[in-house]
Formats: sequence, structure tokens, C-alpha cells
Amino acid sequence: MTMSVKAILAGAAKVGDRVTVKGWVRTKRDSKAGISFVAINDGSCFDSVQVIAANSLTNYESEIAKLTKDCAVIASGELVESPGQGQSFEVQATDIQVVGWVEKPESYPVSPKRHTVEYLREVAHLRPRTNLFAAVTRVRNCISQAIHRFLSQEGFAWVHTPLITASDCEGAGEMFRVSTLDMLNLPRTDKGAIDYSQDFFGQESFLTVSGQLNVEAYCLAMSKVYTFGPTFRAENSNTSRHLAEFWMIEPEIAFADLNDNAALAERMLKFVSTALLEQCADDMAFFAARVDKQALTRLETISQSNFEIMDYTTAIEQLLKADKSFEFPVAWGVDLASEHERYLCEELVGKPVTVMNYPKDIKSFYMRLNEDGRTVAAMDVLAPGVGEIIGGSQREERLDVLKARMQEIGVSEQHLDWYLDLRRYGTVPHAGFGLGLERLVSYVTGVANVRDVIPFPRTPGNIPF
Amino acid sequence: MTMSVKAILAGAAKVGDRVTVKGWVRTKRDSKAGISFVAINDGSCFDSVQVIAANSLTNYESEIAKLTKDCAVIASGELVESPGQGQSFEVQATDIQVVGWVEKPESYPVSPKRHTVEYLREVAHLRPRTNLFAAVTRVRNCISQAIHRFLSQEGFAWVHTPLITASDCEGAGEMFRVSTLDMLNLPRTDKGAIDYSQDFFGQESFLTVSGQLNVEAYCLAMSKVYTFGPTFRAENSNTSRHLAEFWMIEPEIAFADLNDNAALAERMLKFVSTALLEQCADDMAFFAARVDKQALTRLETISQSNFEIMDYTTAIEQLLKADKSFEFPVAWGVDLASEHERYLCEELVGKPVTVMNYPKDIKSFYMRLNEDGRTVAAMDVLAPGVGEIIGGSQREERLDVLKARMQEIGVSEQHLDWYLDLRRYGTVPHAGFGLGLERLVSYVTGVANVRDVIPFPRTPGNIPF
Repeated sequence: MTMSVKAILAGAAKVGDRVTVKGWVRTKRDSKAGISFVAINDGSCFDSVQVIAANSLTNYESEIAKLTKDCAVIASGELVESPGQGQSFEVQATDIQVVGWVEKPESYPVSPKRHTVEYLREVAHLRPRTNLFAAVTRVRNCISQAIHRFLSQEGFAWVHTPLITASDCEGAGEMFRVSTLDMLNLPRTDKGAIDYSQDFFGQESFLTVSGQLNVEAYCLAMSKVYTFGPTFRAENSNTSRHLAEFWMIEPEIAFADLNDNAALAERMLKFVSTALLEQCADDMAFFAARVDKQALTRLETISQSNFEIMDYTTAIEQLLKADKSFEFPVAWGVDLASEHERYLCEELVGKPVTVMNYPKDIKSFYMRLNEDGRTVAAMDVLAPGVGEIIGGSQREERLDVLKARMQEIGVSEQHLDWYLDLRRYGTVPHAGFGLGLERLVSYVTGVANVRDVIPFPRTPGNIPF
Repeated sequence: MTMSVKAILAGAAKVGDRVTVKGWVRTKRDSKAGISFVAINDGSCFDSVQVIAANSLTNYESEIAKLTKDCAVIASGELVESPGQGQSFEVQATDIQVVGWVEKPESYPVSPKRHTVEYLREVAHLRPRTNLFAAVTRVRNCISQAIHRFLSQEGFAWVHTPLITASDCEGAGEMFRVSTLDMLNLPRTDKGAIDYSQDFFGQESFLTVSGQLNVEAYCLAMSKVYTFGPTFRAENSNTSRHLAEFWMIEPEIAFADLNDNAALAERMLKFVSTALLEQCADDMAFFAARVDKQALTRLETISQSNFEIMDYTTAIEQLLKADKSFEFPVAWGVDLASEHERYLCEELVGKPVTVMNYPKDIKSFYMRLNEDGRTVAAMDVLAPGVGEIIGGSQREERLDVLKARMQEIGVSEQHLDWYLDLRRYGTVPHAGFGLGLERLVSYVTGVANVRDVIPFPRTPGNIPF
């Protein structure tokens, strides 16, 4: 019976059963007694299954002896108890069929030797064949599935908001233009501007920076909704925390305030942490052993302890009191820089911190104005090691206040008239947040650069696959 | 205790309990005895809960009597058994708080009267407040969650392939350009061409038409993977079956042939059908009653019967034999037109049909060449009413054959050298397919136009929200 490596190692077959496993050679070791130990991995779990190939196999000399890393094989044989350490079962092969060879193994780009993550980015199509990237793939999948499960069981509906948009949610972020105009022959208006009325959508169009405004429309009908999809920033920033294309999860809850929002974010991160501890124990053990010693204890901390909640004003006071010199100045009214965020969660508190109620002047127009008139009901969840992983707010549900804020900031009312409709017709207090998937994967695995936690990273000047 | 309408109607509270429900007024009926019956809906399920408001409530005259459709309210009271038909429970209100009024109800864009779907597209931000679009939203969510659950339990990992790409998977589809170049001042090369080396990614970039090529790289390391994300076509086609931006699910399986692929597609559609029957019974009953009488029986058929499998050559023979005149000619070698597909699944077979082994000349370069040398291991799943909902193939895993096909068709080898690496290093037979989410939602609900099964449709000239 054909089984995944995961099923075999988990004991899904009995000792004595005949099993078939299909996968890629991870390592091969030859004993002097004329036996080869071939470790086969199929990506289903971190570990490989050991297949014992005796030199009595008909293709031993012609093929098995020549196997190298990542040759594709189908091995059949009897499941036996493993005398070795670390594994309970192995397969005594009666047949090993080589399905795909590795051309010129000596120049194979992901040969068994150690490679730097920087080098592996250049062969992103082959890097899932390494322990590190396969583990990242499984962890990323586990997190994504856990988020869907969590939100589903809390009664949220996944809403697919559009990627191509004519509006700029934040009124700030740099955006990619989407067009089918002939670049060599651009249509012009009488006044010499580009005539986007002739473009595919009849107006200038962009890739979205957030699905929030659109998903709010669904929130005010379905109560609990979320987006889970790609978002884009055309920022020319080459840091370990930024991608031009990344994935965001944006829940939006009706009849909710900032505290409900923070509570949801915390429940979600706890659920994800528990799922990882339960379902990716092997991968997480690898990250703890090889990448970041704190990887496991961090998850345990998240799943067990309560997040610190701190008012922005308190955070500023703490930063001013800190026995530490910061590069960027600290004062009430400034946005927190990465060094400030990291001081708060890493040094001051030692776990995720939810900072709330930021000055209105550094936040977006749609955030709800607090009674003090100078702060808005915004929140950021800061995680040790990566800084902000969640940003959210209660939304301004009062039509008059929202209009005044838009005017103050200079956001076009006409362009967002549909958004104002949501306040004209059956408005309710509502709140939501955006979770950056790559930052979360980076945070839980300890893999420092977000380029290494997404399959094919898109950054300035970088689109090879 | 605050509860969703779904929880209340499902009996999560006991008669006599004090419950609070938050939502929007769907209808209000006033009795002559001075009692109002207010149906409150919160999007959690199809039905509304009936709240009984006696005129003894302090704000009865000032507020409750003035409630109109979609005013937002918070109602509290005792859960009582409903004497009326159709509902088991209702709420005897002790307090109804109006949270958000509807401005000028007489001109409210989604007032209680009947609206056409064409009109509702113009107010896409408000249409989830109608029974039809709320039901579509829940069904779409149910399908999406079921797909994730199904593929997870089958051992697949969700892989987030890139949206912005420099390559064209199909070698055919029209694509959207993604750029940050200043359109009024485009950089040129010496030869007068646009100098894309100065663009954000350093080369001409597009929105992807499929994640397949990228996900194959992950398949050949993780064995079972899938994409679930948006894809794009810049085709200027205004039909009920095409969108410029739509969602696709693309599973890819290693060590698999076309039959494995077809079997996976069938299992997945069966799983989704069963999930809909179990979890969206109320919404599906609505579609059966109001949109398409076959909606429920169709799901039952899918979940219980086996799909018809038909060779392309047989399909052509059947079409030639058909007592029917087609607009487009039928002959071995032509691609099936929509009328042909519909004849096969609607008239000839009466259920989904999987057509296999198409002529190579009408299919993509990456599809595996069959032994006959003139067909490829391609498949399309055709569904009554919508035509193709799944298209897939076994992939050409043989390096020499793939290279020959690319040369024959004129696909640049240099550009896809990374893709050829997957055949150079540990290649295995593998297969996969793409399922169009909108076509599936359209198929199961009977909602004929795909613009009405995605929240904010993107079509030529149409990007209002």
C-alpha cells in the first residue's frame, strides 16, 4: 500500500506490512557489508523514512549505488521496526525504482552541502528541497489553515475583496499601476495627460494596498468577515521586513470596539500557536535547534500568557524613562520607530504588546476619533524580533466625524462616496485589523528575512521566477 | 447573553433565557394591537430572528415605530417559543436600541422592493444586504473553506505563488502590465523601446494568469500542494462567464497521472457538495426556490454519482452523431465550443463530464504528450449550465519531450530555464488542475452571471469600488 512518509512514521501501517513510498533521496549511506541506507523524503513531514537496500536487489549496482540527493524513487518493501535511534520504523526494500535522476549531481544547485539563504533565494524554485524551506512551507501552511479554521469557527466568512482597485485605501502607500495601454503609443487627452479612459477599466487602476474598505461593506451586512489574500506596496525599501507583494489577513467585526478587536487578535494568535505546537512539532523543533532557540518557548508563551496592553501615551512615557539611547527622538505625537517597538516588546515586556490609542495625526482617516479629540482608536500588536505584526483600529462609524476627518486630511469625498454610504445606512461601531502573514511566519520560525518565508519573493529589481 | 441569529435559531439558548441580538432590520410588521414584529438579520444565516416589540417599550413611538429596512439595532429580551410557522424561537424584547438609522429610507439604494441583479451590481457595496447576495457570500465561503479542509486532510500544503510575474504561463492569455514607471515620462532605450530595466522589478512585469508553473516547483519537493488565490485575464470579453480578476484553486500532485488527477477533482467536488448540503442547507433551499429548481438535486447528484469520463475522440464522435446543428463545426482537432460542452454534459449525459486526451495542437506546451503522438494528457471537467469549471493535465515530466514541445510551439527555453530544472533534477510524473471558483459558485447556486458571485467584479470598463 502506498503511504506518505508522515503516515509511515506515525505508525499508520503495521510491522510486517508491505508498503510503498514515493519521494526523493535525502541522503544515502553505504555500509561495508553491501547495504545502502537510503533516506526518502516526500515533504509530508520533516523526517525522512529510512529504506534499507541490500546489494541483492537486481538494480543495486546499476542504479541504487548511484543515487544522489533528490533523485526521485519509488521504494517498496516490508515495514520493520528500526533498531536505530530516533525512528520507530524503516522499510526493508524489495524493490526500488528510480523515477528521475539528478543531472550532473556535482553541479546540482541544491547539493547536500550547506548553502546560505542568500544563495538559495537565487534558486527559489529548488529551495523547498532543503530542510529549512520545506519546514517553512509546512509552518506557513499550518498557520494559514489554522487562521481559516479559527475564523470559521468564530463565525467569520472569508470575503474575496478585489486586488485591482481604483482607490488608495491608506491615502498614502505607493502603488503599482495596472494597465493594458500600449506603452509605445499612449493615448492622451486634449490637455496632454494620459487618457486612462481608454485603459482596460476606463480609469487609472492600481494593485490594492488593503482590502479593508471593501470588506467593511461586507462587515456591515454579514457582521463577521475577513480577507485573506495578497496585497502590494510599491515601496523601494530593501529591508528584511518588506516585500512588494505579501499576504494579509484582515478580519472585520461589526458591533465591536477596539477592545473586542484586540481580544480577537490575541485569540487568533493563541489559536495559531497551539496549532503549530500540535501539528508542526517536528518542524518547530528544527527551528528551535537550528534557527532560533526561543522558537518553541515563544509559541508556548503566546498560547499561555496574556498579551500586554499599553496605551500609546504610556508607551511614550516608558520610552522616555528608558535607560537607552534611541536613534530616533521620542516625544508624544511621533510614530514609533522599529527600535522603539522592539524596546517595548523585547526589553520592557518580553512578549507581544498591543499598543493602543495613537495620535490622530499619524494615523489613517478611517480610524475612530477618541473623546480626547487628539487620539484615535488604533492598535498595533508588536512582537519581539519583528516589531509590528498586526495593525488595526476601530473604524469611524459616525458620518459627520468621518467627513470632517477626510476633509482635514484631504481625502476625496467624491471618490469614497460608496464608503460613506456605509455610514449613511445602518452604520454600527466596527473594528478590524490586518495581520501580515510573512511577519508572523518570520516571528514564529525565527527566520529573520521575510524573503525566506514566502515561496517566490518580490522585491525591488527582483522577479526571476 | 449576546448571540448570533444563527445560534439563536439553532437552539443554542434555552426558552426563558435573556438574549441580546445585534443586527439589521430586515422587515417590520405592525399589528393593530400596538405590537411590532421586527425581523433582525445579522448575516450569520439565511433566516432572521423575529423580535416582538410591544408599544410599552419606552422608545416605541419615538424610534421603533420608525424603523426601516437595514436600520442597525441591538435588541434584548426573553427567548420564547414561536407560535408562528417556520421558526422555533423568537425574542420578546425588553429593550431595543437603535444604533444606526437609514438616511432617507425612500431613496435607500437597496430598499425592500425587488431589484434586478444588473442594478445591484451598481451598488455592489450594499448588495450583500439582500437575501440573494448574502446567500451567495455564505455559499462562496462554505465552498472555499471546504476546499481548504478537503485538501488539508488529503495532505496538501497551500502554497502562495506570486501574483506579479515576468512570465506568461500559458504562452497565450492577455495580461495586465504592472509598473511604477512615470507614464508621462517613460524611460527609453537607445533603440527607442521602453526601458523596463528602470521599472520597479527591473523588467517588464505582469499579473499572473496561473500559479501552476510556480507551484510545480513546490510539488516536486512537497508532493501535494495547491494554490488558492486571484488570477487575471486582460481579455476584453463581456460574457457571463468571464472576469478580469477571478479566483482559482490549483492542486498539483507528484507521482500522479491523469486518472489520479481526475479522481482528485471528483473527490473534491463531492466533498464540496456534501459540505454545502450540510452547512448551507438554508441558503441552498433559497437558491432552489428562487433561482434554480435544480440547485439541490444537482448537489445531491454530484455527491452521489460518479462523473462520466469521456475521451476527447469519443466526445467528437458523439457530437458528430448528435441530432443537433451546432453553430461551430465539429471535427477531430478543433477545440470544443461552449455549445459542444453543454451538449455533452447537459443533453448527452446530464451530469459533469470529464473529457480527456485532447489534440496536442490546441493545448499548452506543458501537457504530457500521449503515446499516440497527437494527443496530450489534458482534461476538462464540464458542468451542466456553465461548461468548463476545471481544466487540468498531466505535466510533461520528460526533459527532452518538453524541450521539443517548447521549440515546436515557440516558447522561450531561456526564459523558463528554471522550469526545465524541475525535469533535470529528480523529475517525477505529476499532474494538476485549475478550478475556477466563480464558475463553481455559479454552478451550484444557479446564479447565471459570474459578476454576481464575486464581491466586487472587475470587467472591462468596470472598477467602481
